[in-house]
Amino acid sequence: MMKRLQLFVAAFAILACNPLLASASDPSPLQDFCVAINDTKNGEFILLHGFTILTNLTLFHAVFVNGKFCKDPKLANAEDFFYSRLNIPRNTSNPIGSTVTPINVAQISRMNTFSICLVRIDYAPYGGLNPPHMHPRATEILVVLEGTLYVDFVTSNTDICFITKVLNPGDVFVFPIGLIHFQFNIGNTKAVAFAGLNSQNPGVITIANVIFGSNPPINPDVLTKAFQLDKNIVTYLQSKFE
Amino acid sequence: MMKRLQLFVAAFAILACNPLLASASDPSPLQDFCVAINDTKNGEFILLHGFTILTNLTLFHAVFVNGKFCKDPKLANAEDFFYSRLNIPRNTSNPIGSTVTPINVAQISRMNTFSICLVRIDYAPYGGLNPPHMHPRATEILVVLEGTLYVDFVTSNTDICFITKVLNPGDVFVFPIGLIHFQFNIGNTKAVAFAGLNSQNPGVITIANVIFGSNPPINPDVLTKAFQLDKNIVTYLQSKFE
Amino acid sequence: MMKRLQLFVAAFAILACNPLLASASDPSPLQDFCVAINDTKNGEFILLHGFTILTNLTLFHAVFVNGKFCKDPKLANAEDFFYSRLNIPRNTSNPIGSTVTPINVAQISRMNTFSICLVRIDYAPYGGLNPPHMHPRATEILVVLEGTLYVDFVTSNTDICFITKVLNPGDVFVFPIGLIHFQFNIGNTKAVAFAGLNSQNPGVITIANVIFGSNPPINPDVLTKAFQLDKNIVTYLQSKFE
Amino acid sequence: MMKRLQLFVAAFAILACNPLLASASDPSPLQDFCVAINDTKNGEFILLHGFTILTNLTLFHAVFVNGKFCKDPKLANAEDFFYSRLNIPRNTSNPIGSTVTPINVAQISRMNTFSICLVRIDYAPYGGLNPPHMHPRATEILVVLEGTLYVDFVTSNTDICFITKVLNPGDVFVFPIGLIHFQFNIGNTKAVAFAGLNSQNPGVITIANVIFGSNPPINPDVLTKAFQLDKNIVTYLQSKFE
Amino acid sequence: MMKRLQLFVAAFAILACNPLLASASDPSPLQDFCVAINDTKNGEFILLHGFTILTNLTLFHAVFVNGKFCKDPKLANAEDFFYSRLNIPRNTSNPIGSTVTPINVAQISRMNTFSICLVRIDYAPYGGLNPPHMHPRATEILVVLEGTLYVDFVTSNTDICFITKVLNPGDVFVFPIGLIHFQFNIGNTKAVAFAGLNSQNPGVITIANVIFGSNPPINPDVLTKAFQLDKNIVTYLQSKFE
Amino acid sequence: MMKRLQLFVAAFAILACNPLLASASDPSPLQDFCVAINDTKNGEFILLHGFTILTNLTLFHAVFVNGKFCKDPKLANAEDFFYSRLNIPRNTSNPIGSTVTPINVAQISRMNTFSICLVRIDYAPYGGLNPPHMHPRATEILVVLEGTLYVDFVTSNTDICFITKVLNPGDVFVFPIGLIHFQFNIGNTKAVAFAGLNSQNPGVITIANVIFGSNPPINPDVLTKAFQLDKNIVTYLQSKFE
Repeated sequence: MMKRLQLFVAAFAILACNPLLASASDPSPLQDFCVAINDTKNGEFILLHGFTILTNLTLFHAVFVNGKFCKDPKLANAEDFFYSRLNIPRNTSNPIGSTVTPINVAQISRMNTFSICLVRIDYAPYGGLNPPHMHPRATEILVVLEGTLYVDFVTSNTDICFITKVLNPGDVFVFPIGLIHFQFNIGNTKAVAFAGLNSQNPGVITIANVIFGSNPPINPDVLTKAFQLDKNIVTYLQSKFE
Repeated sequence: MMKRLQLFVAAFAILACNPLLASASDPSPLQDFCVAINDTKNGEFILLHGFTILTNLTLFHAVFVNGKFCKDPKLANAEDFFYSRLNIPRNTSNPIGSTVTPINVAQISRMNTFSICLVRIDYAPYGGLNPPHMHPRATEILVVLEGTLYVDFVTSNTDICFITKVLNPGDVFVFPIGLIHFQFNIGNTKAVAFAGLNSQNPGVITIANVIFGSNPPINPDVLTKAFQLDKNIVTYLQSKFE
Repeated sequence: MMKRLQLFVAAFAILACNPLLASASDPSPLQDFCVAINDTKNGEFILLHGFTILTNLTLFHAVFVNGKFCKDPKLANAEDFFYSRLNIPRNTSNPIGSTVTPINVAQISRMNTFSICLVRIDYAPYGGLNPPHMHPRATEILVVLEGTLYVDFVTSNTDICFITKVLNPGDVFVFPIGLIHFQFNIGNTKAVAFAGLNSQNPGVITIANVIFGSNPPINPDVLTKAFQLDKNIVTYLQSKFE
Repeated sequence: MMKRLQLFVAAFAILACNPLLASASDPSPLQDFCVAINDTKNGEFILLHGFTILTNLTLFHAVFVNGKFCKDPKLANAEDFFYSRLNIPRNTSNPIGSTVTPINVAQISRMNTFSICLVRIDYAPYGGLNPPHMHPRATEILVVLEGTLYVDFVTSNTDICFITKVLNPGDVFVFPIGLIHFQFNIGNTKAVAFAGLNSQNPGVITIANVIFGSNPPINPDVLTKAFQLDKNIVTYLQSKFE
Repeated sequence: MMKRLQLFVAAFAILACNPLLASASDPSPLQDFCVAINDTKNGEFILLHGFTILTNLTLFHAVFVNGKFCKDPKLANAEDFFYSRLNIPRNTSNPIGSTVTPINVAQISRMNTFSICLVRIDYAPYGGLNPPHMHPRATEILVVLEGTLYVDFVTSNTDICFITKVLNPGDVFVFPIGLIHFQFNIGNTKAVAFAGLNSQNPGVITIANVIFGSNPPINPDVLTKAFQLDKNIVTYLQSKFE
Repeated sequence: MMKRLQLFVAAFAILACNPLLASASDPSPLQDFCVAINDTKNGEFILLHGFTILTNLTLFHAVFVNGKFCKDPKLANAEDFFYSRLNIPRNTSNPIGSTVTPINVAQISRMNTFSICLVRIDYAPYGGLNPPHMHPRATEILVVLEGTLYVDFVTSNTDICFITKVLNPGDVFVFPIGLIHFQFNIGNTKAVAFAGLNSQNPGVITIANVIFGSNPPINPDVLTKAFQLDKNIVTYLQSKFE
């Protein structure tokens, strides 16, 4: 019994650690909506993600699909399409000085099969940075609500082109799918932006974290050669991002 | 020569009258970006939309593709990805009390092939209405910045289900592709919302305008029967929406 | 036990009330075929739609996917791909004078994952109307077998364009995805048409029913403003379409 | 000049010899409609398919896109969505005793980008055969109007499964994308069927013609081995299908 | 109990007999990866493919989805992405003198949702033939490692075009989705090729086997007419391919 | 005239510098094939990429589409589907010790619209590295022909997972779309691999080059903060990758 419960906890943790979810080429809906099932409620034993099950054999196995299983459409209600408090400023007291608040299929279960999500980004004054990263499954359109952001994206090899712009409130910018981009607060006040992404789960790959902070770490010889860095610097960086 | 110029003007007008453009199932990009070509600039004779041409035979013919032609990628620059002034409140002094400001492939040419666009919506106090409409090619995610909106969408036949919610600043709601929805300002201050849609050209079909205001008008006998209205009311409505 | 059975009934009802199902951008099949599972047979306790389970814990939960679950391909047979009696005239004695007989994934389970369906439409003489409606997930191609139909569709805002044609037996017409259209029998005999739609579940939104007949009803203030109708007329219409 | 005209003729011929055109995974439309351009009219020098051009350098070059170029949407009218006379019986006096009349993007130019087409099939009495063939880009749904058809399709390797059925008027059957199928008139009257296919250009590969009738012919040694036929029979068959 | 086990065996057999699996228009992944579940391990009672279950009611039912169910991502490891021994020459002592070794979702479970697979093909010297066949769900790119291959593909009707080439080591050729093609070893040494196909399950339809070897057999009258063969030859061929 | 020629040269250079081109969600073909037009031949003035025009007005303008324009299908021949010499070992005398030889739409023009390409990769002995990179538009399946490669990929945030394996000849591994991966020759002989990617233009983003070698360079303050490196190291790296 304990083992079964642990498995549930593990399954839930997986969902929680996928903060951004959606794709530029997500499949289209095949019905009006398909509200995702993604939690256990009320202590009741709900079958998370289509597991099957069963019982005095103490057999247990979880299955997943590409995307999410859906809730019985008869049971859908307005709360399934709703999320609140995106107007509340977020705390940006962290080393990079920014906080991303995603509203995707994990927050609004209805977004399942709808190929879209939304994020709020808060940037600390004087250098709050949403560091170089990319979304493997979505293009992003960003609008600045407050502050002054220096934004960029870099095209793919070989003729690497760096496109950059300073944005003020009311300015809009587009970051294409799969290309590395960042936003940097160059003003002396906090900054806030909203962004739409065309996937229910865009994914996010923060370059520094993925390169230097994976677990287990990437072989330092590879990074030494790829980045032409001294091996001591590589191992120092790996210790910081762990 | 005159004829040629008139044709250009006509072509440009077509673009201007398609204010929202993008789709939930837009094709994916086949290169890093494909900045749309959509205007004539500087009095220069630029070949809008891949037309071909011309000359002392005074030959002229315009062609279009599904979507847009692209600009030479070498000539792309940050301005192609940028739009400004979405922070400026819009005038809502019109019969329905709302104004939609779309930022799509027509405003940010780079959005071509990226399956996403953004809109700002302003609502007048006491009843500003973004009237019942639907987007044939996109799902919409809306976030309220100011005011109090009563929102809804209606599912498809036969078991017609009406899902409704009151939204306050910071609240987020999703309207699925192809379903009829509206937002209604039930507060005594103006309201403002931003919305992302997963198409470069979502399209918009405002039910009342399309049903009663098409040109030429729909046969009144059809509307009399479909809406079970007195024929005089139908012709009266057609005169108002013309 | 009772509760369990009721849930089954409810689940089945949901399927039944989605008479048209398919999409212009349905995913492609990933195997030769994927016959949908969509019914309980012979009083046997069959696990409808991948539900799991069961038993002395009286546990029960239904899950759905985007589309349908499939039958074991070893058990597929010709009946799964077959539907009969589309040649039988349908009764059109109803207020609008038309009857739609859909053959989609609910009737031919094999159509699951195949992005296509077929309908027969019967129209009463002198004014049988398939009233203004649209399909959120399919384009339609219609061929007239008997009678004379006046057909139309209306393009999206703002430059609303109404395209119309009178069709006789053997005539073919196309109605694009998401645009509002109707067919009206202007002859003095019954009319019959067949139509193909490129989705396993196109969906259908009949404008008058959705606007005036939703449950709960749309706020009459919204309709009064959107349609510029007297509020009494709105509440009268809502009472008729309930 | 002569050379230029010949090239035009060739380009037109290509279109004409692709009788069926559409696909189960055609891209979605990015605007309300995109009427295909596929002809020269009025003796005028119209630039078919986006060619570019010309002049006193006598330069000429034709280009094509994936699919079709579109007509200026301002110039679209009801005729672009229309085709007539599908009710007229076709002549089936040919060796196989059947005639296929396709209504696809070549006949209704509007079908461009709409992923659907329609065919009428006439079968001679006593053995009219629509011989074993497949559509590389579409699934087909067929409804019988007159007569009695024996239909089948065969699944892919290795566990080859043959699914067959006798159809009478009003019966409907589905043939999945890419699988080989045929219809055979086993009645003593003519038969007629209509079929919808989910592509603007499904393509058709008639097995016997492609295997034995290609130009230049397939190496007879290959066919001898593949079909385990005597080489004399292979060369005899190749002479008949030439 | 016996019956239950038999069903499991049958389900497993189905998977095994689909040696090639993937599609040119497979849906995109909605998460980083979705490792397919496709086996029972360790004698443990694992719920293959989301079946549900069971028990003292002796209830049993299998369900499938379009594609495959996924494994819990937490349990994925490098072995899920790995296959070995593609360098080992295969035995080509069979009537057609060739052996295809597919590496698809059945061999590398991770390939689920990734729209790609790989095959090794070995050809016997002096006439080893990969006989005329097509893939209903994939385009193929082939590279020759050893030997000399004569390759071809045939376009669709009506203007049947046969495109052919002799390939030597290091040569690359492309065979488009749904078109019939073959490779024939015209050298006096064995030949080896690798090929990539853009589907997790391309499918394969070997023309001779499907036409003459289906079970039950196709009606000989149909084949006699379609191939213009003597009926005795047809029944002789059917006996050989059975 | 000079200016015109320069523009042609520039256009050609763009193509040349996009060595890998194709996508996991490329659109499907809408005809049997669509051979790309991508070069000028024989000194003849051919209109590359659908440009239009020219003449005594010295007018010139280039247009592009999403993907490529196609050649007249009548003019396609076997050479359009063919590429040779992939068996020749490549020189790996460069700082990272590896060379990638792509065979994509730029080399085999026929691959246009077919969503697939192939690469050969040569690795120097003792540490040849195909450095950390990702493909924004394709999943990759790799097979080792010679040598011993240590390969890995890293999943997206936040729960960053590093999946690694040592591969020997005949081993196969899959790298998913958009995830960072590398291959490192840990043997004392050269290594060779072939890989298939499911796009006509996968794109490649080499992390170190894009981060430190873009032109103009990324603001060093951003990199200092993102990578937590001393600013001197950042500017040193930028000088090396320029």
